[in-house]
Amino acid sequence: MPELSQEDLDGIYAFAVQLGKDAGRLLLDAARLRCSDDREPEQDHVEKANAVDLVTQTDEGEETYSKGTSRDYLIDDEPTWCVDPLDGTVNYIHLFPMFCISIGFIVNSVPTIGIIYAPFLSQLFTACRGRGAFLRTHDGPPQPLPLVRHPVPPMPAKAPSGCVFSCEWDKDRRDRPDSNMHRKVESFVNMAAEVGGRDGKGGMVHGVRSLGSATLDLAYAAMGAFDIWWEGGCWEWDVAAGICILQEAGGLVTTANSPDDPSTAPIEDVRLGSRLYLAIRPAGPLEMETGRQGQERTVREMWRRVRQLDYSRPGA
Amino acid sequence: MPELSQEDLDGIYAFAVQLGKDAGRLLLDAARLRCSDDREPEQDHVEKANAVDLVTQTDEGEETYSKGTSRDYLIDDEPTWCVDPLDGTVNYIHLFPMFCISIGFIVNSVPTIGIIYAPFLSQLFTACRGRGAFLRTHDGPPQPLPLVRHPVPPMPAKAPSGCVFSCEWDKDRRDRPDSNMHRKVESFVNMAAEVGGRDGKGGMVHGVRSLGSATLDLAYAAMGAFDIWWEGGCWEWDVAAGICILQEAGGLVTTANSPDDPSTAPIEDVRLGSRLYLAIRPAGPLEMETGRQGQERTVREMWRRVRQLDYSRPGA
Repeated sequence: MPELSQEDLDGIYAFAVQLGKDAGRLLLDAARLRCSDDREPEQDHVEKANAVDLVTQTDEGEETYSKGTSRDYLIDDEPTWCVDPLDGTVNYIHLFPMFCISIGFIVNSVPTIGIIYAPFLSQLFTACRGRGAFLRTHDGPPQPLPLVRHPVPPMPAKAPSGCVFSCEWDKDRRDRPDSNMHRKVESFVNMAAEVGGRDGKGGMVHGVRSLGSATLDLAYAAMGAFDIWWEGGCWEWDVAAGICILQEAGGLVTTANSPDDPSTAPIEDVRLGSRLYLAIRPAGPLEMETGRQGQERTVREMWRRVRQLDYSRPGA
Repeated sequence: MPELSQEDLDGIYAFAVQLGKDAGRLLLDAARLRCSDDREPEQDHVEKANAVDLVTQTDEGEETYSKGTSRDYLIDDEPTWCVDPLDGTVNYIHLFPMFCISIGFIVNSVPTIGIIYAPFLSQLFTACRGRGAFLRTHDGPPQPLPLVRHPVPPMPAKAPSGCVFSCEWDKDRRDRPDSNMHRKVESFVNMAAEVGGRDGKGGMVHGVRSLGSATLDLAYAAMGAFDIWWEGGCWEWDVAAGICILQEAGGLVTTANSPDDPSTAPIEDVRLGSRLYLAIRPAGPLEMETGRQGQERTVREMWRRVRQLDYSRPGA
């Protein structure tokens, strides 16, 4: 397959933005119908299928990779769509606004275009590799991400203290002694506890947030609203668009699980299908430290405080 | 003091709505300035003071009760304003959209008018006792709460299973064995764990959410988006407006701590200054059970699963 030109990418980017808007409007219309006087109950069950149809109808020559078709990792070096037509399904069912469309386009295994649209919030996040990341809301022009950028704030000197920490409880709630749920909770408590607590692992983060949408967690990290997101268990359609947007904004995404030597191991970009993610927001320099150094310092402080998570996948 | 007439209340309601909008716009303007090219750093530190000034300037004969003036409980039978000019301060600092203005007006110790405005989300929640609760967004007419109301969904038959559970980690992060942080986390895990887990306390909730704003937790319960909110430690200015809005929408607010006999004790409305809150969303009937009975059933199932929290206050 020949290389995609920048002109090709620009065309695909514009198409993906419009697709995200259209799919979001469909979700919003269906949600509004549930609030109206003349709703028909059976409508509730077809709306997600409709959104899936809309995005899968866009398969025009590229390989389409959409939620639910397989749990094998299917992405190779070919240009590939990686789409979640509804991230935050539980939120959507309950009409809590934190749900969105996520559209990723991956080239040579790199998330290259990312679109996240949260229609209830009128927030549209977009990025194309090399062109920056942006937030559009209903009433204004595209704003570059992160939002605060003159200058971009550094990572706090005592991170994770001072950070907003975002994490999710997940659907795996097994109560075995060493289950992922208990490993996660132990890690959350380490992050929250006072400095000096938890045998030195206390992180005293500024706040702990759980939205129920991995996709929006990444979008808010790109915005600069969340400093750290740590998660295991979600899939590439949950994160492909968000990784592109966060990286284009200047953020870092690596693995949730600490390597054997957390204080010196090189910090590599996450493998898209790994199901283990640690994201750090865009950061500016702090005295002698570059922004990247501040992000890496934060990654190492995180790895020191969190448990290894145990998620695997077929064929991996 | 003479009784307030309905006409008096309507006038105060209209005034409070306008005040909320004005204060929200001030917060939004200050936030936008932080994102602009020509910001002046010292601006960051005066914006909250400005918002406080705006609301305290409204003290025109009524006793004003605003955040930070005292930790004594000052509300008596006189008509009283109870205002938080910025709930979700950490979110606001980080520009995460979950922050708001909260304006409560209390008569005979009952939250009688409630205004919650989240300017980044363009969500304005309002209620006046006897007149219902409403949500206004930027692009539409007032929508009555809860949003889904034809019919209002019942509480799930196996609640808390199937419920979205909202809770906050709070600022008290002491790592003592029986600290409030550990009591909370133990309760969160009970709510999250599989049915049958945690020695029968497993709640298998549909989702666990933490927004960092008690005020918006209550607003989303009124909307129907959160089924259950359980919290200790926040103050009356965090909840006065939200309690009014939730109650007017048909929700229930009682105490977070179980009485001695959780299965038979009468379920009483919360005391505003108690710092212990358990809120249940508006609910419709389920077979032979009324909506209120479904809410009370959910309260008793909650009390069975959560630890007693230890919050007190001067003079209480």
